[in-house]
Amino acid sequence: MSIVVQKYGGSSVADAQKLKRVAERVMQTSASGHAVVVVVSAMGDTTDELLALAKTISPNPDRRELDMLLSAGERISMALLSMAIRELGGDAISFTGSQSGIITNDRHVDARIIEVRPFRVQDELARGKIVVVAGYQGVSYRKEITTLGRGGSDTSAVALAAALGADRCDIFTDVDGVYTSDPRIVAKARKLGRITYEEMLEMASQGAKVLETRSVELAMNHRVRVHVRSSFTDAPGTLLVDEDEIVEHQIVSGIAYSRDEAKITVQKVADRPGVAAAIFGPLADNAINVDMIVQSASEDGQTADLTFTVAQADLDRAVSVLEQSRGELGYAALKPDSNVVKISVIGVGMRSHAGVAKQMFRTLADKGINIQVISTSEIKVSVLIAAEYTELALRALHTAYGLDVAG
Amino acid sequence: MSIVVQKYGGSSVADAQKLKRVAERVMQTSASGHAVVVVVSAMGDTTDELLALAKTISPNPDRRELDMLLSAGERISMALLSMAIRELGGDAISFTGSQSGIITNDRHVDARIIEVRPFRVQDELARGKIVVVAGYQGVSYRKEITTLGRGGSDTSAVALAAALGADRCDIFTDVDGVYTSDPRIVAKARKLGRITYEEMLEMASQGAKVLETRSVELAMNHRVRVHVRSSFTDAPGTLLVDEDEIVEHQIVSGIAYSRDEAKITVQKVADRPGVAAAIFGPLADNAINVDMIVQSASEDGQTADLTFTVAQADLDRAVSVLEQSRGELGYAALKPDSNVVKISVIGVGMRSHAGVAKQMFRTLADKGINIQVISTSEIKVSVLIAAEYTELALRALHTAYGLDVAG
Repeated sequence: MSIVVQKYGGSSVADAQKLKRVAERVMQTSASGHAVVVVVSAMGDTTDELLALAKTISPNPDRRELDMLLSAGERISMALLSMAIRELGGDAISFTGSQSGIITNDRHVDARIIEVRPFRVQDELARGKIVVVAGYQGVSYRKEITTLGRGGSDTSAVALAAALGADRCDIFTDVDGVYTSDPRIVAKARKLGRITYEEMLEMASQGAKVLETRSVELAMNHRVRVHVRSSFTDAPGTLLVDEDEIVEHQIVSGIAYSRDEAKITVQKVADRPGVAAAIFGPLADNAINVDMIVQSASEDGQTADLTFTVAQADLDRAVSVLEQSRGELGYAALKPDSNVVKISVIGVGMRSHAGVAKQMFRTLADKGINIQVISTSEIKVSVLIAAEYTELALRALHTAYGLDVAG
Repeated sequence: MSIVVQKYGGSSVADAQKLKRVAERVMQTSASGHAVVVVVSAMGDTTDELLALAKTISPNPDRRELDMLLSAGERISMALLSMAIRELGGDAISFTGSQSGIITNDRHVDARIIEVRPFRVQDELARGKIVVVAGYQGVSYRKEITTLGRGGSDTSAVALAAALGADRCDIFTDVDGVYTSDPRIVAKARKLGRITYEEMLEMASQGAKVLETRSVELAMNHRVRVHVRSSFTDAPGTLLVDEDEIVEHQIVSGIAYSRDEAKITVQKVADRPGVAAAIFGPLADNAINVDMIVQSASEDGQTADLTFTVAQADLDRAVSVLEQSRGELGYAALKPDSNVVKISVIGVGMRSHAGVAKQMFRTLADKGINIQVISTSEIKVSVLIAAEYTELALRALHTAYGLDVAG
């Protein structure tokens, strides 16, 4: 029998009424002849509320204890959903991440799945049961309860789908699919019927919030057919597919943005070998990820300016790390700037089409938008611009690449 | 190093502020040179709230799923308490019932502990840690999460104290000890400095709510020194001890009452061998416990009246079971009555002193209170009376046995 994994996010199971509706949908899928595994997030804002409660007790709570706390949220929703399915006559059983065999590393609060051993899930499916699994959590090889970080339930669902050889992994969420750009900003954004794994991965890592990056990566590596769709309608959503399953490619499939970037410029560092290592070494040692980097000659011809981006949350820490190395680096000034946004145009069509970047730069120039940093990959061009231009840039690029809905 | 187990009930950990106060008390105990294991209940009314949520989804929720749900409550409080202790500089680690090695049978929602294997607890104590344990829960030999029923956290605490060979098991609650009678009704009730296990067991099973019966039984069997005390004051509470540790016994130590009883009279059943079995067999088959029983000859000399008590919650079910057997039993009428209370006087002194029952009957008769059923054990006399006399009877008996506080 074909296995379908369905994942429901927090907003889809926010209260008893919504849980009952999810139970009905699960029953429909089961009635249509599939073995169903359901992965649930915590109800509504439970995780945030538990986190807030922890912060009132300890500003910097122990990470293992935080995992103990946060994992309770999904246990509540999985048990209630299982009851709701049974109430409709379905034979459901719920499992924690640990019982589902989701084995992780030991990094509490942000653990990575290292193996899935879904023996109990398989046994219960073979007995004809609907299996409900707590998302976002696993158990470390040290037998400690772990959580998978933001968006972790997507990762749980895709990892289970891969391990079970599921036909499909439905990700039910509060939007009805993946759009060419954020529809809250770009009114003419179109829903994509299909998107390649590679594009989705770039979309997610460049700021699109619909799927978590790791879950896309996992889906891509195991060729899991992920279907992103709305839990509130029956409309088809967006299917993640291989490149050869899309007959006619747009050159650009989507435009993502991220407000989570901050820029630091290190002015007038000596332009000699090893200086980049001297700057980025201490940042890496402090687990600060650097994304975009550009180096330019200073006016004096003797020194260079180095500009790069880090996550907003890391900005203060990055500045203080660099200030500590000032003596060694001998720069003239540090200029932090959190008032920036990263805009990315993404499409596998770029591989065979030149001119995508040029069109981007021209479109932005026509609107009087200054580009601060550029970075590119095979299927993506990203630029850093001032945050105030976000909406203007997204809409202009969306039109320029011919993505607007007709009419 | 001596081990102290401390149990804090839901009202003691109801919010962040109270959790911090509990953490302070734990730190004091630790600072005074004890290895400390803390057992916590769910915060405030969490368990009732989760149960109510389950009932909105399913009027009769699956018991395994209910255990999955309810066990989340203690996981939240244990993690938060552990954080609060760490915030004060203590080195705390929290364990679920399963991680603490509390192995139960398979009866979900009302499981019994069959073994405690506290290896992880012992290892962490040996490393100098303060161990926080989720009360009320365990894991069945089938590796399923179970809960221990009402008052289960007391049982968790005493079972751990026994398994660890703890010096003492402090039960922190919202009253400051065990009283000669319920102080909300009997204003002159005295707090007992010490009480024997046997007396406490009778007090608990006859309706005193301060400790759960099973936990007292467990304490008695393993000679755990249980100390019942208030989490809001430093005053000493009541210590459970062996009989030989109390030098001078009162004849009566306490007077308990239970409003949880209901009476059924089966009128005019044939007075022949086997009739009692024919009545009580079907009740037992339906898991209905019968407590007090009295049989009396009917006026006609040919038949008998049989009166007995069951739990209030079982009354309707008991009546319907007996109605189904009416053809076989051939009784004249069934008279259910839920308007009764059971009053019990308890004291190990009764073993050596006659006249305790007589004094009880005379005291009640003097107040015009009719006794409906009587039952006795070695250290207890119980009577069933009309519920409206509860307060009058308790106060009169308290005075009659010389238990009133001086002044």
